[in-house]
Amino acid sequence: MKTDIEIAQETKMDCIVKIAKQLGLEEEDLELYGKYKAKISPVVWEKVKDNPDGKLILVTAINPTPAGEGKSTTTVGLGDALRQIGKKSCICLREPSLGPVFGIKGGAAGGGYAQVIPMEDINLHFTGDMHAITAANNLLSASIDNHIHQGNSLQIDVRKILWKRAVDMNDRALRNIVVGLGGKANGVPREDSFQISVASEIMAILCLSTDLMDLKRRIGNIIIGYDIHNKPVRAKQLKVEGAITLLLKDAIKPNLVQTLENTPAFIHGGPFANIAHGCNSIMATKYALKLSDYVVTEAGFGADLGAEKFFDIKCRYGNLKPDGVVLVATIRALKMHGGCCKTSLDKENLESLEKGLANLEKQIENIEKYGIPVVVAINVFLSDTQNEIAMVEEKCNQLGVEVAPCEVWEKGGKGGVELANKVVKMIEQNSSEFKVLYDEKRPIKEKIEIITKEIYGGEGVEYSNKAEKAIKELEENQLADLPVCMAKTQYSLSDDPSKLGRPTGFKINVKDVRVSAGAGFIVVYTGDIMTMPGLPKIPSAEKIDIDKNGKIVGLF
Amino acid sequence: MKTDIEIAQETKMDCIVKIAKQLGLEEEDLELYGKYKAKISPVVWEKVKDNPDGKLILVTAINPTPAGEGKSTTTVGLGDALRQIGKKSCICLREPSLGPVFGIKGGAAGGGYAQVIPMEDINLHFTGDMHAITAANNLLSASIDNHIHQGNSLQIDVRKILWKRAVDMNDRALRNIVVGLGGKANGVPREDSFQISVASEIMAILCLSTDLMDLKRRIGNIIIGYDIHNKPVRAKQLKVEGAITLLLKDAIKPNLVQTLENTPAFIHGGPFANIAHGCNSIMATKYALKLSDYVVTEAGFGADLGAEKFFDIKCRYGNLKPDGVVLVATIRALKMHGGCCKTSLDKENLESLEKGLANLEKQIENIEKYGIPVVVAINVFLSDTQNEIAMVEEKCNQLGVEVAPCEVWEKGGKGGVELANKVVKMIEQNSSEFKVLYDEKRPIKEKIEIITKEIYGGEGVEYSNKAEKAIKELEENQLADLPVCMAKTQYSLSDDPSKLGRPTGFKINVKDVRVSAGAGFIVVYTGDIMTMPGLPKIPSAEKIDIDKNGKIVGLF
Repeated sequence: MKTDIEIAQETKMDCIVKIAKQLGLEEEDLELYGKYKAKISPVVWEKVKDNPDGKLILVTAINPTPAGEGKSTTTVGLGDALRQIGKKSCICLREPSLGPVFGIKGGAAGGGYAQVIPMEDINLHFTGDMHAITAANNLLSASIDNHIHQGNSLQIDVRKILWKRAVDMNDRALRNIVVGLGGKANGVPREDSFQISVASEIMAILCLSTDLMDLKRRIGNIIIGYDIHNKPVRAKQLKVEGAITLLLKDAIKPNLVQTLENTPAFIHGGPFANIAHGCNSIMATKYALKLSDYVVTEAGFGADLGAEKFFDIKCRYGNLKPDGVVLVATIRALKMHGGCCKTSLDKENLESLEKGLANLEKQIENIEKYGIPVVVAINVFLSDTQNEIAMVEEKCNQLGVEVAPCEVWEKGGKGGVELANKVVKMIEQNSSEFKVLYDEKRPIKEKIEIITKEIYGGEGVEYSNKAEKAIKELEENQLADLPVCMAKTQYSLSDDPSKLGRPTGFKINVKDVRVSAGAGFIVVYTGDIMTMPGLPKIPSAEKIDIDKNGKIVGLF
Repeated sequence: MKTDIEIAQETKMDCIVKIAKQLGLEEEDLELYGKYKAKISPVVWEKVKDNPDGKLILVTAINPTPAGEGKSTTTVGLGDALRQIGKKSCICLREPSLGPVFGIKGGAAGGGYAQVIPMEDINLHFTGDMHAITAANNLLSASIDNHIHQGNSLQIDVRKILWKRAVDMNDRALRNIVVGLGGKANGVPREDSFQISVASEIMAILCLSTDLMDLKRRIGNIIIGYDIHNKPVRAKQLKVEGAITLLLKDAIKPNLVQTLENTPAFIHGGPFANIAHGCNSIMATKYALKLSDYVVTEAGFGADLGAEKFFDIKCRYGNLKPDGVVLVATIRALKMHGGCCKTSLDKENLESLEKGLANLEKQIENIEKYGIPVVVAINVFLSDTQNEIAMVEEKCNQLGVEVAPCEVWEKGGKGGVELANKVVKMIEQNSSEFKVLYDEKRPIKEKIEIITKEIYGGEGVEYSNKAEKAIKELEENQLADLPVCMAKTQYSLSDDPSKLGRPTGFKINVKDVRVSAGAGFIVVYTGDIMTMPGLPKIPSAEKIDIDKNGKIVGLF
């Protein structure tokens, strides 16, 4: 079996100018980054803004398990499959982060015969967006500490600074640090922390902004911490929102690349899926909708987190109307949801599968609450048996939902033709009646309770004292009228990662609540969220290499 | 008077493909970054390596003063002026750092009518080289702390780690920090430090490498610190030199842009001029020499530091043979060297000027020790009087050295035609007999003493106990056979910044000695060197902005 990088490097890429022509774009509409990557010039929007929108398809999944589900791969493969059946499609993905590339998880460019390319560039520096976001984050950090050092006229409380520094690397030693040591010339000592760049609020802002001035306004609104009177201090009070916006002037332009089968692919932005909303940028999605008939995109984690935030945060701010959802499941993961242990997944186990299907059922119900039709995609593995596949199909039939196998990892677009046909049929036969789940003007607790009951299937919400206090403060500071962004385990519908399947009778425990006033959402913490990963004992970095001919090994 | 950014943005740029054609390059030889920036594809070397080399001209200066001397501006303007007189010229500059752009010093793209463009891109992210270097630096940092956290089988002494983290920002609060706090899951606590990215040894390595495999070898050789037995620990023992090299696979390719007058300009690499050698990359310089007849380049600080390291480090490793030197001086700076105070520079002061000319004289003598002919360029200011200019000319005549006014800041290439003619004449009439100053195999102290006596005009060298011990350790570890890289104040020929003009009777005080085993030089510290600048009370960042039409203000 070939590795991902071998498959990617063997593929004959089309020049990006040719890829753009498929979308009706000319060379002058592009800012080229080498022969195979481009950014879309901002002048294009004026040309295309009156085009009718294409159909927007979200790829999401059941709650993930260690068995994997293959969401990015399905997204890429479905884009290719739609081309195979003669549709003008394109895909919208998130940008990978260097941390996982050198750590354990690998890149995020799909896999097997369903990848975006040039894979090595996309997984490394790409067009520099992540580095620009890191620099923008750290200019704000340096400005905060400089303001304090130069006299602190804003009376920032060094014990209540929320803004963290950022680095695009897995580096646990930077999770808890003390800065400003070494005496008077070297700043004011305080506790600080680095997070990985994708966890920066700047990333969430970039993804939710509709243009450069909206970006600047949102950056100015960032609450960097509190003053000694406990009033929020915003980035604009430091007067650096213009310089930060300038650093992002190119990062805000959507990136265009291609799949292994030369389908156009927008890859732009990639915020965390827990403390942020976990979707690619609104701008890339809007361009894609104006330039093609079918746009396939994905959201982070499972549908309870990823799809909910895609609908309630991204679609709300972007005024987007999704037309259909593909819900990815694997037989193996469903069996784990039904109690089967990881080492026994290769054996047929109808009992576990039947139990585990409850997770799929709940996610389908959830999506239907938004008024959008859904197709189930079974990401097929060699170990799946006929009986098992038949059971999933029967369940979907009972639920009145179409189901199709997906073999794009092994076969590319050809492996997703049945899925593509069913997706097109679903969209043609069912018109989406999309609506968000809640009015963002409702009180914070009501919003959290609606999501808990409607989406997670829980009975209610418990708040810690800290959370109660934080909610009260946000309401007092008129910061409550925003959508909520749930930071919850991805592994369960509940906030307990061990409760698989479709748990009932549980409550959600809210430990803390914080506002991302620039991005425009209220983050609700149901547990400790790690925003700086660590490297494993033997990191991927040790296996990655490049030789004198530029041949790369170890990237995946 | 227009600002630099106004002049830059009013200029009609040629497409970079057209600029490259001037050098005999085709579009296929380039990797485009938008319409006005490109990297040179590595395949080009095979095509051009047998071309004859053009003439290499170094622009350097007297010891700088707060009055400024205009080295980058002269370099750009001379490149344009050589085109004006019909020569096929190009220039080689260093890449700016974001730190000074947002701090106080501004960018590094020349000034007035002698600039490289697109100025805003060059001064911001450019083609991402600085970010790649930062990421490469920090991957090594993360690997060190991860190695220690995972059991520390190399027995690295956490009290003797030399490798610092890097950020491309002026951020004094990161000068002295403690990392790894927060308990067992979050690493091992230790003192650490961030430096600005241009101070990273990775930057020096990139600039001194002759190809990708030389880069990988040098990265592997980096000494990250010492083990508990006081033996050096190298990057290759952490097995990450391949991954770090991969991060630099594009950064190592020279960047091509243009001047305001469409002269081709290579801008590639920019190491510190104190703890490193302060010149653009060997690779860019070699490409430039193969592709044009006259290559104008610069080195950091004044000639005692910049030119010495250009010759003894860069030319030694790159096997380069410079053909001529332009020594930039201003009447104002010469008067300061002669004792005139900064507030009186607008008045004629022949007495101070005469005294100050001793600095110019010494720098001319120094350059002649390398066997290279020199022309003096007077960077003209409105306040300069006829008598003052005549005195400088007379001094140069006495020394047998040509002198020419330089008005490129105000007039562009036209303002440097006389200088360009004299440079061409000098090179045609005098063949360079270039030789380095010392054999790198001599003992460390001998190398330091040769530079002190021959270049600085000092009487000898004093070593601190720390330096004595460090030299002994380097010799014991077979790390002594490398050129030395002096870290000394730029303001004086001595190591005392207040000793202007041509001081005599002084000794150089060596406080510490450290090896940059990857870059391949021994850094000799004559004082405290700041490798992380701070932001001023009102940083430039507060005045920088971008509006909805993309118009930028405040960059300089």
